[in-house]
Amino acid sequence: MNILILSAGTRNKIVQYFRKELYGRGKVVATDMSNLAPAIYEADKYYIVPSMHAPEYLDIILDICKKEEITGVLSLIDPELSLLAKNCDKFNKVGVKVIGSSYELCEMSLDKNRMFQWLTTHKYNCARSYVDKEKFFSDVEKGEITYPVFVKPVKGSASISISKVYDKDTVEVLFAHEDGLMIQEFLDGQEIGADVYIDMLSGEVVSIFTKKKLKMRAGETDKAVSFQDKKLFDLIEKFAKEAGYRGQIDIDIFDINGEYYISEVNPRFGGGYPHAYESGANHMNLIINNLNGEINDSVIGRYEIGTYMMKYNEIMIRR
Amino acid sequence: MNILILSAGTRNKIVQYFRKELYGRGKVVATDMSNLAPAIYEADKYYIVPSMHAPEYLDIILDICKKEEITGVLSLIDPELSLLAKNCDKFNKVGVKVIGSSYELCEMSLDKNRMFQWLTTHKYNCARSYVDKEKFFSDVEKGEITYPVFVKPVKGSASISISKVYDKDTVEVLFAHEDGLMIQEFLDGQEIGADVYIDMLSGEVVSIFTKKKLKMRAGETDKAVSFQDKKLFDLIEKFAKEAGYRGQIDIDIFDINGEYYISEVNPRFGGGYPHAYESGANHMNLIINNLNGEINDSVIGRYEIGTYMMKYNEIMIRR
Repeated sequence: MNILILSAGTRNKIVQYFRKELYGRGKVVATDMSNLAPAIYEADKYYIVPSMHAPEYLDIILDICKKEEITGVLSLIDPELSLLAKNCDKFNKVGVKVIGSSYELCEMSLDKNRMFQWLTTHKYNCARSYVDKEKFFSDVEKGEITYPVFVKPVKGSASISISKVYDKDTVEVLFAHEDGLMIQEFLDGQEIGADVYIDMLSGEVVSIFTKKKLKMRAGETDKAVSFQDKKLFDLIEKFAKEAGYRGQIDIDIFDINGEYYISEVNPRFGGGYPHAYESGANHMNLIINNLNGEINDSVIGRYEIGTYMMKYNEIMIRR
Repeated sequence: MNILILSAGTRNKIVQYFRKELYGRGKVVATDMSNLAPAIYEADKYYIVPSMHAPEYLDIILDICKKEEITGVLSLIDPELSLLAKNCDKFNKVGVKVIGSSYELCEMSLDKNRMFQWLTTHKYNCARSYVDKEKFFSDVEKGEITYPVFVKPVKGSASISISKVYDKDTVEVLFAHEDGLMIQEFLDGQEIGADVYIDMLSGEVVSIFTKKKLKMRAGETDKAVSFQDKKLFDLIEKFAKEAGYRGQIDIDIFDINGEYYISEVNPRFGGGYPHAYESGANHMNLIINNLNGEINDSVIGRYEIGTYMMKYNEIMIRR
């Protein structure tokens, strides 16, 4: 059983965890387009590959799969999730399972406006969102939404180009300078992160890890504490099943006076997953079981509460 | 010989390095106002202390110094540098050396406008800076400066509230929303980081480590490569001596077509110091020598070139 991790980047912990879980059973192969991606050096073997936008990219990855006898492949970056999902048949043909959700779900999850539409239609609490700023201004006048709001790219990540905005003038200036922006209601509550595993064989949600985010930095969770709440678990289970996700997903949620609001979904390992792993939510193992053809039983709630995660910078030196 | 590191925060590597260098000779004590500061748990002993703005703060730190028989104290955050410098006599009285520069230099280094004035007066290349936006607009009309420019807080750090601005309207909007802003020329060149040690006894620059920054993220250097250039070493030596810095400093420099521009100085260990240490520029040892009453000989240039540093996230879990 060999696992291929694409676009490993700086996700050293993810590579380390897979390697640990596969120890004695198989190897981890990692790729990146840069030889300055520290995570590739944690793998048993690595390949420097072209950009995922290069026409030959997919063939190169498929070649690596054949050569390294890969069992399952996953990517750690958003734009590549759809590429893998779209081409899952090609991977299947060479005996490789794509670890992830469908093309449609990957595309929807990347698009904050489509996600908003879906959540609203399916009656989940979520942040009110606008791609049409005139509609937003008119709703402000009607008192249906108030400042501050977030102005952010419809397809953005890592808090890049997000502004907290307090007045119409600033909305106008931002929209005048950048395309593809949207306005999103500012949810003022406790931020929560959920790491969720949906069994790839049964389609059932089999693991949920939730944490309260205590401190954010540059769009990432810097400090957090694990907790459990049955009501939240039920919401997450219903949502992930109804949407149809598969494999590992990461959900951002807000708790506003006891009501949970779904904010965003990344259908991949999020930057905060190490907290889940170190608290006992071992999703590498669930993936390995699935790749072995075994259906996972639910382990929802089987992790330690009250574990505090604190991030810090480690460095890797190469000569 | 015991060393006290104040406001250790997430600077785990700095605490680790001091502990390694002091092994068998003394202990490292760390403080922070938060028990979610992972670096304190790397120390031999730690104290949770009030905010540095609390009236009792200094006495608490002095008490720790006495109780733990501290030899030297340093802080890892900007606002505390001036506090230590201002009160160095009180520390001396209890046998503790403040590792750092004078109060005046700490204050100047924190204030980008004062720094600009000093650099200009002393004829160092630097980014043209304005606190007066009308003066800036008038210079734009005269063709003396062009967009884009940076709008940033005069006293800011970690790229917080920095905007790259392309027109007058945006400058006006930003200035209307926030006080204490300045406009700074956009230097378009290779960013360089320098870790410099000025002997606390002789006042001579005894170690310089320079690196080219290859990738930035949230105001921090994510990837870099070490290099050496005699012309740059000479500039840094002249500058640090002329300004009168002491102990560890971190300088941001731009290389624009072979001319070096000094951008910023942090008179403390910067976030990128681990690259210097891992390449052979061991400033912990220089500090220990100084605390032992020994003057350091110059080791300028005695480090490995071509070492690539890649940052990634490590986590610490506490229960």
